[in-house]
Amino acid sequence: MKALIYDGQNLKLSEVDRPDIKEDHALIRVLLAGICNTDLEILKGYMNFTGILGHEFVGVVEQGPEDLIGKRVVGEINIPCNECDLCLNGLHRHCRNIRVLGIRNYDGVFAEYTLLPVKNLHIVPEKIENERAVFIEPLAAAFRILQQIELSGSQKVAVLGDGKLGLLVSKALSFSKIPHIVFGKHEEKLSLANKWTSTEFSHNFKQYDRYFDTVIDATGRKSGIEQALQIVKPEGTIVLKTTIAGKIDLDLSVVAVNEIKVIGSRCGPFPVAISALANSLEVRDLIESTFDLSEYQKAFERASKSSLKLLLKIDRQ
Amino acid sequence: MKALIYDGQNLKLSEVDRPDIKEDHALIRVLLAGICNTDLEILKGYMNFTGILGHEFVGVVEQGPEDLIGKRVVGEINIPCNECDLCLNGLHRHCRNIRVLGIRNYDGVFAEYTLLPVKNLHIVPEKIENERAVFIEPLAAAFRILQQIELSGSQKVAVLGDGKLGLLVSKALSFSKIPHIVFGKHEEKLSLANKWTSTEFSHNFKQYDRYFDTVIDATGRKSGIEQALQIVKPEGTIVLKTTIAGKIDLDLSVVAVNEIKVIGSRCGPFPVAISALANSLEVRDLIESTFDLSEYQKAFERASKSSLKLLLKIDRQ
Repeated sequence: MKALIYDGQNLKLSEVDRPDIKEDHALIRVLLAGICNTDLEILKGYMNFTGILGHEFVGVVEQGPEDLIGKRVVGEINIPCNECDLCLNGLHRHCRNIRVLGIRNYDGVFAEYTLLPVKNLHIVPEKIENERAVFIEPLAAAFRILQQIELSGSQKVAVLGDGKLGLLVSKALSFSKIPHIVFGKHEEKLSLANKWTSTEFSHNFKQYDRYFDTVIDATGRKSGIEQALQIVKPEGTIVLKTTIAGKIDLDLSVVAVNEIKVIGSRCGPFPVAISALANSLEVRDLIESTFDLSEYQKAFERASKSSLKLLLKIDRQ
Repeated sequence: MKALIYDGQNLKLSEVDRPDIKEDHALIRVLLAGICNTDLEILKGYMNFTGILGHEFVGVVEQGPEDLIGKRVVGEINIPCNECDLCLNGLHRHCRNIRVLGIRNYDGVFAEYTLLPVKNLHIVPEKIENERAVFIEPLAAAFRILQQIELSGSQKVAVLGDGKLGLLVSKALSFSKIPHIVFGKHEEKLSLANKWTSTEFSHNFKQYDRYFDTVIDATGRKSGIEQALQIVKPEGTIVLKTTIAGKIDLDLSVVAVNEIKVIGSRCGPFPVAISALANSLEVRDLIESTFDLSEYQKAFERASKSSLKLLLKIDRQ
């Protein structure tokens, strides 16, 4: 099968063996996949990953349990060992020996086929088109925030970043009736977000000194946390969605003195994202373009410049 | 009156005017004061403070409301403006124009007299000796943790740092029947802590990789947060007590990926500390020595080397 492989230095489309089916697993023919900022970070060295890249996808089960054959599915990206102390304590998502689809010790989905544990799969309801289904993984990560902190309509909430994740977080908040302001740097992205929420240019931060009860950093930049610390209220909460390679120079005394909570946030509940999409949440306005897998170079070049979603069409049928 | 003044470069004992009494304030004759790590940080440039240093004290009211005259008191260190949006929203402790006793725009207590708003004062019950009363401010800061997070006996809890604050945090936890391990570098301090809790040398961190539900960083060192990130469980909590000048180089992706909560923690509830001391909590084992104010140079030299508490006796009577 064709697969997009990162060897630690270059990304190349290669011909490799299709994965063999295993017990409790399903072999999935990938239909459509999304390029995530994490993929771009991996190409800069994040996680030291090598192998088939990609973790956002929708596909069709070709081999595996009978009731799944032919079903359209999406898949959770964490593959725990189910044996370590963390797994045994219910922290599977943070397993000591965790493998992560296309991110850590596990081949990803920028390929004609991918193999995943059946446990990881969720069937996609018919009314969710492939172009929306491919957003389920990142949208679930956006909804994760609402599992971690209580947000109410009366709180002042800011989302930092008008990139893919920032806009998805904003859509998840709007869907959940949480008013908020999206801060960004890109006029066209902010006018897009303006269709469903308030927006503000990042250079207007000064007006919002210690103003927000909750600030969600989805900038994907080192500067995000520092900006969040500027505009969050004392005793307020910063949700950290940004995961980037390398160290950040930070004055942590602000966190202690202002008694701020910083909460890391990663993968989220697929059923919540699926239910939102089934209830008409629109996300296709976040798609910049769709390329064939063979055009991956163009797609990655565009992805590295764009803040909107680039999709890879894997199966032409 | 005699006062220990930091001019931004040197600490000097000087003769200055006694503060004038003001409405809603009390003039307090200082009896005993404690040297805190924050004082040492200020001498390194933290907060750009100049003026009379010191914020941990016990004294006797000499002027002010009649019912306070002659009473032994301790004082909360935050002096809010009561007018800004944060004050009006109940965040007095984090006032935009906050002045902080001996730390920010407000003369401190290493002097024969200090002036504080009556609101800030707490009367010290007779059974709490001066040598224990002088610990009320830092002990309250230790108890603050228990206001911010729920700790139960079944959780695994670590305290990083066997200095003054680490040991006070440990005493507050033990008083509240929360089992925990104190990590430190100093044999003599760890054997002291061993009298009431378990201890472990910091170089044994590796054994505790992602082990603790809650880690309290009271190291007062830049390395504290990084060590905490090593030993805290995914979805666990780090309480940040350390406030130090300058920036820290930090890999924040661990916080996001492991979904860790980092909670800043500062000043705490005086009534809780007073009640614990009135209920026989012993803290005098944390006193290293007591010096007269005139011997301040010796005291600060010892304080900068020692992890235990140095006291300044201000009034010889």
